[in-house]
Amino acid sequence: MYSVQKLAQLLEVRVDPSLHLDITGVAPIEEAQAGDLTFLANPKYVQKIEDCKAGAILITPEFEGKLSIPGLYTKNPYLAFARAIELFHSKPLPPRGIHPTAVIGQGCTLGKDIFIGAYVVLGNNVTIGDGVTIHPHCVLYDGVVLGAGCLLHSHVVVREDVQLGQRVILQNGAIIGADGFGFAPVGDGSYHKIPQVGTVILGDDVEVQSLSSVDRGTLETTTIGKGTKIDNLVQVGHGSKVGKDTVICGQVALAGSTIVGDRVVLAGQSGVSGHLTIGDDVIAAASTGITQSIPKGKVIAGYPAVDVDIWRRYVTQLKNLPELSKRVRRLERALEVKKNSGDV
Amino acid sequence: MYSVQKLAQLLEVRVDPSLHLDITGVAPIEEAQAGDLTFLANPKYVQKIEDCKAGAILITPEFEGKLSIPGLYTKNPYLAFARAIELFHSKPLPPRGIHPTAVIGQGCTLGKDIFIGAYVVLGNNVTIGDGVTIHPHCVLYDGVVLGAGCLLHSHVVVREDVQLGQRVILQNGAIIGADGFGFAPVGDGSYHKIPQVGTVILGDDVEVQSLSSVDRGTLETTTIGKGTKIDNLVQVGHGSKVGKDTVICGQVALAGSTIVGDRVVLAGQSGVSGHLTIGDDVIAAASTGITQSIPKGKVIAGYPAVDVDIWRRYVTQLKNLPELSKRVRRLERALEVKKNSGDV
Amino acid sequence: MYSVQKLAQLLEVRVDPSLHLDITGVAPIEEAQAGDLTFLANPKYVQKIEDCKAGAILITPEFEGKLSIPGLYTKNPYLAFARAIELFHSKPLPPRGIHPTAVIGQGCTLGKDIFIGAYVVLGNNVTIGDGVTIHPHCVLYDGVVLGAGCLLHSHVVVREDVQLGQRVILQNGAIIGADGFGFAPVGDGSYHKIPQVGTVILGDDVEVQSLSSVDRGTLETTTIGKGTKIDNLVQVGHGSKVGKDTVICGQVALAGSTIVGDRVVLAGQSGVSGHLTIGDDVIAAASTGITQSIPKGKVIAGYPAVDVDIWRRYVTQLKNLPELSKRVRRLERALEVKKNSGDV
Repeated sequence: MYSVQKLAQLLEVRVDPSLHLDITGVAPIEEAQAGDLTFLANPKYVQKIEDCKAGAILITPEFEGKLSIPGLYTKNPYLAFARAIELFHSKPLPPRGIHPTAVIGQGCTLGKDIFIGAYVVLGNNVTIGDGVTIHPHCVLYDGVVLGAGCLLHSHVVVREDVQLGQRVILQNGAIIGADGFGFAPVGDGSYHKIPQVGTVILGDDVEVQSLSSVDRGTLETTTIGKGTKIDNLVQVGHGSKVGKDTVICGQVALAGSTIVGDRVVLAGQSGVSGHLTIGDDVIAAASTGITQSIPKGKVIAGYPAVDVDIWRRYVTQLKNLPELSKRVRRLERALEVKKNSGDV
Repeated sequence: MYSVQKLAQLLEVRVDPSLHLDITGVAPIEEAQAGDLTFLANPKYVQKIEDCKAGAILITPEFEGKLSIPGLYTKNPYLAFARAIELFHSKPLPPRGIHPTAVIGQGCTLGKDIFIGAYVVLGNNVTIGDGVTIHPHCVLYDGVVLGAGCLLHSHVVVREDVQLGQRVILQNGAIIGADGFGFAPVGDGSYHKIPQVGTVILGDDVEVQSLSSVDRGTLETTTIGKGTKIDNLVQVGHGSKVGKDTVICGQVALAGSTIVGDRVVLAGQSGVSGHLTIGDDVIAAASTGITQSIPKGKVIAGYPAVDVDIWRRYVTQLKNLPELSKRVRRLERALEVKKNSGDV
Repeated sequence: MYSVQKLAQLLEVRVDPSLHLDITGVAPIEEAQAGDLTFLANPKYVQKIEDCKAGAILITPEFEGKLSIPGLYTKNPYLAFARAIELFHSKPLPPRGIHPTAVIGQGCTLGKDIFIGAYVVLGNNVTIGDGVTIHPHCVLYDGVVLGAGCLLHSHVVVREDVQLGQRVILQNGAIIGADGFGFAPVGDGSYHKIPQVGTVILGDDVEVQSLSSVDRGTLETTTIGKGTKIDNLVQVGHGSKVGKDTVICGQVALAGSTIVGDRVVLAGQSGVSGHLTIGDDVIAAASTGITQSIPKGKVIAGYPAVDVDIWRRYVTQLKNLPELSKRVRRLERALEVKKNSGDV
């Protein structure tokens, strides 16, 4: 529980200094009860406030004086709400220490204030930064480097020589640095495995969610830039270079050697063919199939990907295609009739 | 081996009481040999019986007296066959007990007749119902509750505070309750992680197959209703609510806060955008891209999803699009010619 | 470091016997420095050689005498380059032996020169061939058979009775033999699990990459033929039969009982409905949705899949559909006008 004044101070938002109120929790606008803090990020949903029972609301300053619920004013109510969740629901990290069943290889360097859970296996020459948390059953191969503050959930694998920056979060079952899919045709129909001897570097503040795989490069390094977020079940092919603050949603696949810029958003189930370049700030709608490089700033959809406006116009017409075909047939008959009637 | 009379009794199906025959196994209709029990669920494949060597066949009563193979009559031959497989191929559960290498946290409550395999890790305050089977290398975080009769295969992770009903089956590598994909834009292009402090509840008789991920909600609970079956490599986004007896096939993705009704079927590789509602009994064909809420009972396909009949009509015409375009060009020329020839 | 003469001998390629040069590494053509060996597989990129700083290049014999960089001549430069990577970057296997924390069931047969890592769990009656490497945290259920030279990376699961041929490679988190997705409708909307009592056989030299799932059959055996390569996050449904030297790219899904021939290529995110047959040498473009059996040798794309040339012609026209619709409307008006003007 926080007083609304204390909460406003912690969240760095503005509040009427005369307001006295205790905030006991956080909740979405539809579910908030008396005592809850809620938020409104998108002004177009302002009518939802009418039925809202929240004790106070995080909202943009333009609404000051216009609402029945006390306001906490900030340019970014969603961000402030995220911070409020942290205040009310902080999940304590596991107590620091190394579980006696952890297997630590030779030549490892372990930072301060770390947690290494049951049955974790570290290979040789692994470096663990300060404050790192490694949940049970993670496996780090030889030569892995984890920057300070990294958090690895159970059943994560980090393969040989992979480097993670600071505060990287890996959700359960994420696999970083497995072999890329590289095979040379022998000539008789069979394939010869190409050793995958490159590595992977994840920048600071990267998060990779559950059951996603970032493959190591053949000779090169697969890189994920600072602050980039990767959802579940994503494949990042070997040798790809992903920029900073990019968002890769669930079940997206990047084929090998894909270059993705900064602040790109690839919505769910999109795919990118190999050896392409996706410019900064590109946004791809769900299930976009990208088969050519995309200049920066484009918003795209469809397979093959086109400008989203072009896509919207044609997809709404697809269902009319049978009727269109019939109309053309009718026109052909009409002209035929005229021909036959001798008027041309 | 069962006598056909005993087998009919166990399967609760009808058989000619004068029939004497030993059934030694079960097999599909194409592969069945003398002594095997087979089944025919779909009457349209009845001609397959002519070449069938099975000793007896599970079949609907309408075929009584019409077949050369002895019949076991039931309205649901497929279900009876499933039970026959159980009789002939029961896989014994591992012997009950707790492997000495299992790590059990503080305050756990363990039911009777349980199996906990090698290297299983239970956090604190975990509750395990009677008859639960947990194969090696599963990790259950703090506060997890497993109902009676649950079966968890190796390398399953159940995250903090997740609750499973009775008889839930989790295949290998399923991840229940990893963090949802929630980030607030900071305003400078970067993102701030929104703590995911909700949880997941799986109803009785749910099965989640290998390498699927059901994410925990931000503040709310992600729920999967009783009897729902989820195939491999599926993503269920945070805060989704899936109904009862629904079937979610391989590689389907539900974005966040998706509401899916009862008895829905989402075929392989389908996707549902966030914050939509899919009504009861909806069926979506493979690779359907659902971008709007769908009323109950609809059968849909395509991206964006439309009625399956509309989709079937237009997709078969897509290949004619280049020809259609030429025909329109020809019509334009024909009219142009007429204009030029002065007849209009 | 190798002399170019020694290297040519090891790679079984031809080089000018008078050439004297030390090769210190391998690199792609764009990144190669003095001392590096590079390669050119596709003659259409020959202009890249102009700026290339490599010490020598693996190339086809047709270029002999035409290049500024010394050539190593072979019909298959890419294959020779793969072998060169092996020479310069061989990753040593872990030292042979069995980690004291490994749990070995009863009745197991262990070959010579094997490595079994920390916390590996073998069930009962498991057979491990000579030279097998099993990284930490793999779980092999009862009755598994691994042929000589298999390599299993951490967090692999091989389920009961599954058989692997020789030199099979399983990347991290691959799941072989989990239950297929088989349920019989009970008739009241709910489902009854059909026991999945078949198994899986992987042929010699198969590789399955990270987080892919090959399901066991209901009664039958799911098979993957010799030399077939399966990328990340792939689903192979129960009872499928995949041929030899086939390539299944990332996030492909085969539904149940799919038959796939030899030397097939299924590009990323493709899907195949159940009970279909894909002939030998079929190539499917990325995201192809295969809903009917495909004769051998076809190159296909689209959903539903059509000949790739047909697909290419119509997809490029999709964006013109709104304009086409307008043109038809204009034609209709023009004819209407003529009708109204009385000339027909």
